[in-house]
Amino acid sequence: MTQDDLFHPVIELPEPTRRARYDRLVGLEETKLRLRKEAALLANPRRLQQWAATHHGGDIAALTLFADRAPLFVFAGDVGSGKSALAESFGCDLADFLDLPVYLYRLKLATRGSGMVGEMTSLIGGAFAHIHTVGARATGPRGVRSVQILVVDEADALVQSREAQQMHHEDRAGVDAFLAGIDSLAGAQVPVIVVLCTNRVGALDPALMRRAAAAFTFARPDDQQRHAVLVQALDGLGIGTDTIGKIVALTGPTADRPGYTFSDLTQRLVPTAVLNAFPDRPVNDEDLLALAESLRPTPVFTEES
Amino acid sequence: MTQDDLFHPVIELPEPTRRARYDRLVGLEETKLRLRKEAALLANPRRLQQWAATHHGGDIAALTLFADRAPLFVFAGDVGSGKSALAESFGCDLADFLDLPVYLYRLKLATRGSGMVGEMTSLIGGAFAHIHTVGARATGPRGVRSVQILVVDEADALVQSREAQQMHHEDRAGVDAFLAGIDSLAGAQVPVIVVLCTNRVGALDPALMRRAAAAFTFARPDDQQRHAVLVQALDGLGIGTDTIGKIVALTGPTADRPGYTFSDLTQRLVPTAVLNAFPDRPVNDEDLLALAESLRPTPVFTEES
Amino acid sequence: MTQDDLFHPVIELPEPTRRARYDRLVGLEETKLRLRKEAALLANPRRLQQWAATHHGGDIAALTLFADRAPLFVFAGDVGSGKSALAESFGCDLADFLDLPVYLYRLKLATRGSGMVGEMTSLIGGAFAHIHTVGARATGPRGVRSVQILVVDEADALVQSREAQQMHHEDRAGVDAFLAGIDSLAGAQVPVIVVLCTNRVGALDPALMRRAAAAFTFARPDDQQRHAVLVQALDGLGIGTDTIGKIVALTGPTADRPGYTFSDLTQRLVPTAVLNAFPDRPVNDEDLLALAESLRPTPVFTEES
Amino acid sequence: MTQDDLFHPVIELPEPTRRARYDRLVGLEETKLRLRKEAALLANPRRLQQWAATHHGGDIAALTLFADRAPLFVFAGDVGSGKSALAESFGCDLADFLDLPVYLYRLKLATRGSGMVGEMTSLIGGAFAHIHTVGARATGPRGVRSVQILVVDEADALVQSREAQQMHHEDRAGVDAFLAGIDSLAGAQVPVIVVLCTNRVGALDPALMRRAAAAFTFARPDDQQRHAVLVQALDGLGIGTDTIGKIVALTGPTADRPGYTFSDLTQRLVPTAVLNAFPDRPVNDEDLLALAESLRPTPVFTEES
Amino acid sequence: MTQDDLFHPVIELPEPTRRARYDRLVGLEETKLRLRKEAALLANPRRLQQWAATHHGGDIAALTLFADRAPLFVFAGDVGSGKSALAESFGCDLADFLDLPVYLYRLKLATRGSGMVGEMTSLIGGAFAHIHTVGARATGPRGVRSVQILVVDEADALVQSREAQQMHHEDRAGVDAFLAGIDSLAGAQVPVIVVLCTNRVGALDPALMRRAAAAFTFARPDDQQRHAVLVQALDGLGIGTDTIGKIVALTGPTADRPGYTFSDLTQRLVPTAVLNAFPDRPVNDEDLLALAESLRPTPVFTEES
Amino acid sequence: MTQDDLFHPVIELPEPTRRARYDRLVGLEETKLRLRKEAALLANPRRLQQWAATHHGGDIAALTLFADRAPLFVFAGDVGSGKSALAESFGCDLADFLDLPVYLYRLKLATRGSGMVGEMTSLIGGAFAHIHTVGARATGPRGVRSVQILVVDEADALVQSREAQQMHHEDRAGVDAFLAGIDSLAGAQVPVIVVLCTNRVGALDPALMRRAAAAFTFARPDDQQRHAVLVQALDGLGIGTDTIGKIVALTGPTADRPGYTFSDLTQRLVPTAVLNAFPDRPVNDEDLLALAESLRPTPVFTEES
Repeated sequence: MTQDDLFHPVIELPEPTRRARYDRLVGLEETKLRLRKEAALLANPRRLQQWAATHHGGDIAALTLFADRAPLFVFAGDVGSGKSALAESFGCDLADFLDLPVYLYRLKLATRGSGMVGEMTSLIGGAFAHIHTVGARATGPRGVRSVQILVVDEADALVQSREAQQMHHEDRAGVDAFLAGIDSLAGAQVPVIVVLCTNRVGALDPALMRRAAAAFTFARPDDQQRHAVLVQALDGLGIGTDTIGKIVALTGPTADRPGYTFSDLTQRLVPTAVLNAFPDRPVNDEDLLALAESLRPTPVFTEES
Repeated sequence: MTQDDLFHPVIELPEPTRRARYDRLVGLEETKLRLRKEAALLANPRRLQQWAATHHGGDIAALTLFADRAPLFVFAGDVGSGKSALAESFGCDLADFLDLPVYLYRLKLATRGSGMVGEMTSLIGGAFAHIHTVGARATGPRGVRSVQILVVDEADALVQSREAQQMHHEDRAGVDAFLAGIDSLAGAQVPVIVVLCTNRVGALDPALMRRAAAAFTFARPDDQQRHAVLVQALDGLGIGTDTIGKIVALTGPTADRPGYTFSDLTQRLVPTAVLNAFPDRPVNDEDLLALAESLRPTPVFTEES
Repeated sequence: MTQDDLFHPVIELPEPTRRARYDRLVGLEETKLRLRKEAALLANPRRLQQWAATHHGGDIAALTLFADRAPLFVFAGDVGSGKSALAESFGCDLADFLDLPVYLYRLKLATRGSGMVGEMTSLIGGAFAHIHTVGARATGPRGVRSVQILVVDEADALVQSREAQQMHHEDRAGVDAFLAGIDSLAGAQVPVIVVLCTNRVGALDPALMRRAAAAFTFARPDDQQRHAVLVQALDGLGIGTDTIGKIVALTGPTADRPGYTFSDLTQRLVPTAVLNAFPDRPVNDEDLLALAESLRPTPVFTEES
Repeated sequence: MTQDDLFHPVIELPEPTRRARYDRLVGLEETKLRLRKEAALLANPRRLQQWAATHHGGDIAALTLFADRAPLFVFAGDVGSGKSALAESFGCDLADFLDLPVYLYRLKLATRGSGMVGEMTSLIGGAFAHIHTVGARATGPRGVRSVQILVVDEADALVQSREAQQMHHEDRAGVDAFLAGIDSLAGAQVPVIVVLCTNRVGALDPALMRRAAAAFTFARPDDQQRHAVLVQALDGLGIGTDTIGKIVALTGPTADRPGYTFSDLTQRLVPTAVLNAFPDRPVNDEDLLALAESLRPTPVFTEES
Repeated sequence: MTQDDLFHPVIELPEPTRRARYDRLVGLEETKLRLRKEAALLANPRRLQQWAATHHGGDIAALTLFADRAPLFVFAGDVGSGKSALAESFGCDLADFLDLPVYLYRLKLATRGSGMVGEMTSLIGGAFAHIHTVGARATGPRGVRSVQILVVDEADALVQSREAQQMHHEDRAGVDAFLAGIDSLAGAQVPVIVVLCTNRVGALDPALMRRAAAAFTFARPDDQQRHAVLVQALDGLGIGTDTIGKIVALTGPTADRPGYTFSDLTQRLVPTAVLNAFPDRPVNDEDLLALAESLRPTPVFTEES
Repeated sequence: MTQDDLFHPVIELPEPTRRARYDRLVGLEETKLRLRKEAALLANPRRLQQWAATHHGGDIAALTLFADRAPLFVFAGDVGSGKSALAESFGCDLADFLDLPVYLYRLKLATRGSGMVGEMTSLIGGAFAHIHTVGARATGPRGVRSVQILVVDEADALVQSREAQQMHHEDRAGVDAFLAGIDSLAGAQVPVIVVLCTNRVGALDPALMRRAAAAFTFARPDDQQRHAVLVQALDGLGIGTDTIGKIVALTGPTADRPGYTFSDLTQRLVPTAVLNAFPDRPVNDEDLLALAESLRPTPVFTEES
């Protein structure tokens, strides 16, 4: 098994497209800050001791707990809530903050194996072994030379709860392999961060949730976030401030349908308005309002199992 | 995997049979126009900037959003509503409009693989990689030399929602591979349009619906459409205008059965009337009225899962 | 894949046993006539133009619709209703009517393949490709040299509706392959007629039903049909006319059981009466009446899924 | 595929053990007579014409129906009702009656194949092809040289109704193969009789039931049959007539349990009485009565699916 | 397939550990006696004739029934009721009684095969063929030289009732193979005894139950049995008679939990008392009473399917 | 199959990280003591005789029961209750107590095999055979040279109760193989201890539970345990005693959510408080109280099947 069998092409961050996505994700400051601190400590664990010395006058017992934690974060939420976009772009921020290259590893779907029961187990094991090795190589006597981010998108496909009645034993074994991989990183002191993205947080195995350093819940954008996105996306079209306010209202949740997702705004509403006007006339306020009334937001991913 | 493993024989458009079908699809003008515009922009993205300059006085932020959109359209509707016919024929119109050849790729059923779990994943990946390469080759310094249309008929067989309880993990992985394929085209600036046709729009995965640039719903022909179809199909038989109006009424939906499909009219009602008369006498108005009363329209595809 | 892999031994019609069966199928005249006309047009499409010229004074638009139709007929009905018998014998009539040999192809069960997911798809594809080639070869400059009939008995095993919740994806792909095969014959102008026989018409896929040129429903024989069958089968035994009338009544449906099938009459009632009498005495009226009261007709095929 | 792959070792009848079993099966005279007549006609079809000439003064139409019948008999009933014992022993009677050797073929379980979907289909096909060939070889210019009996025990495992919702397509294909095999024997004029034994007659496919020349239902022995069995089995033990009558009563069905099966009497009640007495004392009437009160008959096979 | 593929290492009995277990199984005298008689007759069938001559004055019809019986015994009951212990140890008693070596064959789990449908069938067939051959070899002109016992523990895993709705066809075929194996031993006059142990007697196939020479039901030890076990196990610890009586009461069934199993007493209660005392003090009466109150007996195996 | 195929890398204990974990597990004294005694007897069975001689004046019958017991312990409880941590660390204590090396074997997930039915069975058999051999080698004339601990984490994946309706036969065979492995160790006098950890004690097979020398139930930490953990973890941060008391209260179970797990306290609460403060200010009491109010404990593993 080579790196290409296990991961999509590795991307070195920062990279302009992803940095732009990171910047567009408004309203997720708390999560962004936490990820930055975690990465800072993985890159240089001594910072924590320095902080303890400065603010608590010496070593503290809590520091030993950090050696046992898994660098695992769960991003959970509906489709279009920005969780995958953040998972694949926050490395741009880390790279700037730490002044180090950050490598983005995205687990390949093929990791599910070719159907032999034990194979999924060994492929997941291989993926963790690989990232572990890369992390160890990036750690030298003069400190850390890079940070690795492993993103597992649609994680529930891999780590669905073993509670589920209809789950096959082989899938349960896949969960177990994932748990083992996470455990192998806990306390290994390698600059690796694992992010699981899932639509179905309730479907993740409790034993996995227990290992998460933190779980962040992502929602569809609220009024403020939609406003910020729209102002940015409509820039240059000469749309009035009042109109934007009305679109914010029209695209929010109502009694019988959810609100717009980030992508409903940026990939459907605004482009469709442009295409309706193209090529003969400009986009105008009425276009947008009519469209915001008629377009149906992406349905919510309903967790049934 | 060669092109022949992945697709049915590629068809260069325009082509007379399909153009005739395109022309027979009355009442779908909005969809036809949208597809033409999308293709025009894929063929020449600068048209959008020219439009922005002309109508909005310069660059607009919205243009950057187009680079992130997937060229994906969902055609959903009942059997016989014309969605597959449009998907396979609108390229004729594009070819005329753009004065470029248009190549029609139809995903083969074999793309589901031979049953090994990881294989469906890699075959779908291969199909997208192929179309991506073809699209890239068709793009040169002097602009686009052709447009590619990838039609996935009976798409729900491939991209059924991962919400479904009884779905196998391997099918979920197929959906994931499809999502990855669509994502690889998003912003790739290659002249490729993907059209998914499905009887069961509710069965498509929300994560896929989120990526669609637009989803069009197709219905059985309404009165006006049935009238247009009948006038065209009965031409030369000397059927009275009143009779045609009565047939339009008889073939519409009633309380206990749906209306006729396009194909119920053109492949069953009219040919059967002809065969009943053949070889001894002409078709007359009574024949058609009697048949319209007795023939049962194709049952509706009821979405149960 | 050779012809032997795909079909049971091909039978050239007319053939005496099947012609006798055809003659015994009383009460199915409408279906017999329609099949004869369809075959006549496939054998010589110019007949339709001649008819149009004669009866409508020239070309009519409806003629172009014939080029798009699939030569597909659905025979649906309960066990013992004669549908399979007709499907395998109507070629005898065609052969006489057209004065051409008619070849009967019966799809082998092995067409379901050996279990690999993609295999059923390719085998069904192979069967249609073969029949298509044979049909093309039978078409020459001097007209059609033979007619091919492809019978798919127990068709629901192959083309069950994709609506069914518990259907496997691989079976759905088989349906799709069948649809593709039918589509390849539509408008191909080859002398091929496809007949699907099924006990479970409700189980057939709507997309398949939509393509059928006609669907005929077969029922257990009614009073008149049972009378005709009995008169023919009891000939020579000296059974009284009154007795036959009583047997017709006794073998009809009642509140708590269905009526006799064709085969209940010809393969169970009469032979059992003969065997009861054999070898010591003649069959008499009482034998038959007693047997008709005690024999239970074949149970109805109840469509549960 | 050789004969050994398809069948258990072929047994030439008559054979003393099976003849004894046949003789012990009291109360099944009607079935025994019917089987004898069917075999007589298969061995020499001209007998029927002779009978017609003698008793009806010449050929009768009904004779032609015999050419279309399948030599298929269904033996249905609870465990221990003697159906398998009869199926494997009635050939002894035929052999005597016809003065011909009778060969008993018992379909091997391996006929279900090794799990590949198409394999069960081809194995069943092979078994029928083999028996067909053997039957043809046994038919010469001077008449039939032997009769073949094919017994399919636990037939429901092979030919369960395709109505069943949870049935796999591959099992449905097995049923279809069986139907095709039966059809290939119908009218083939070869001396072959097929007997299906099943606990679950309701589970057999209607299309199979339709083809059966006759279906016999077997029940647990009634009072008279149990009496006959007991008299025979207790012979020599000096058990009183009254006692036997009491045992007959005790072993019949009651409100809360079924009656004894043939084998409950001969393989459990009597041998246990003997073993209880052995080696120190004779069996006495009290032993048997006490045992008949305490032994629980074999539970009924309840058909749930 | 060698003997090692089919069976655990064969054990020659008598053997001290198993003899001790046999002796510890108090309260199972009836079963022990019956097994001894059965084996005696298998080892020397003439003993039965001698008995008949002595006690009934000559041959009796019942003797012929023994030739048709299967040497099959079903041991059914809850976990810990001693059924497996008896099955694997009663050969010690037979060996003494008959003054012959007894060989204990335990069917390997691998007999379920490697998943190919037909394989389980052929492995079970192989196991029976092997034991049959061994039994035949052990039979010589001077009588039987050894007795073979085939134990199938957890038999329900192999011979679950074919009534079960969710049972796979391949498992049904396994049951059929087992039935065929048993039938091959019936009347074969080889010194082989087959014992099936199962927790789930209700799950065994009726066709199998019908073939059993006897079915014994095992229960958790009653008061008397628990008393005998405790007296034996506590010997030397100086526990008072009153205390033992109290423990007997405490370990019996109550309204809300079952009684102790044999192994709850000998493998949990007494050893835990010893370990609690060890290494600093002797076991005393209070220890045992407290423990008997707090320990929870093994839960009952609840038969759900 | 080598050791590496069956087990994770074997760890020699004592080892500092695991010893620290062992020490942190407060409130599990009873379990710790029992494990120490069991190991002591396995390492030197004569100690028990010495004890019997000292405290009971000679040999006692109970000693013979020890030879029949399986060295099997079940650790059952919710996620985060410390059961796996204890299973992997108690060997440190044994090593000190016995002054012998202790080797920790952790069964690999791959033991489930690659999907062939019989393979899981043979892999589990191989694992037990290996540990048995290692144990035998560690036993010499001068006594035991080491103790082996085999930990099966997430044991329910391997040994789920055969009661479960939807369990596949192949998984039932896996349970059977495990039972056989345990039985092979019973009375084998080798220094091997097997520990099964499971979230789902109710899912374990009764036949397995019956063999357990003891089953320990682990719960989330109670007030006292949480207090002890917090005092240890917060050492050096200058958090007030009152505050710790309040946190103990806040992290206990309430009506609508469970209490914190060990890992919720040490891997989430305290590290998050540190990260919130880092790098600009010290952790203070308010931080911890606020966090203890807002963090949601790991959900309980709900046993549904």
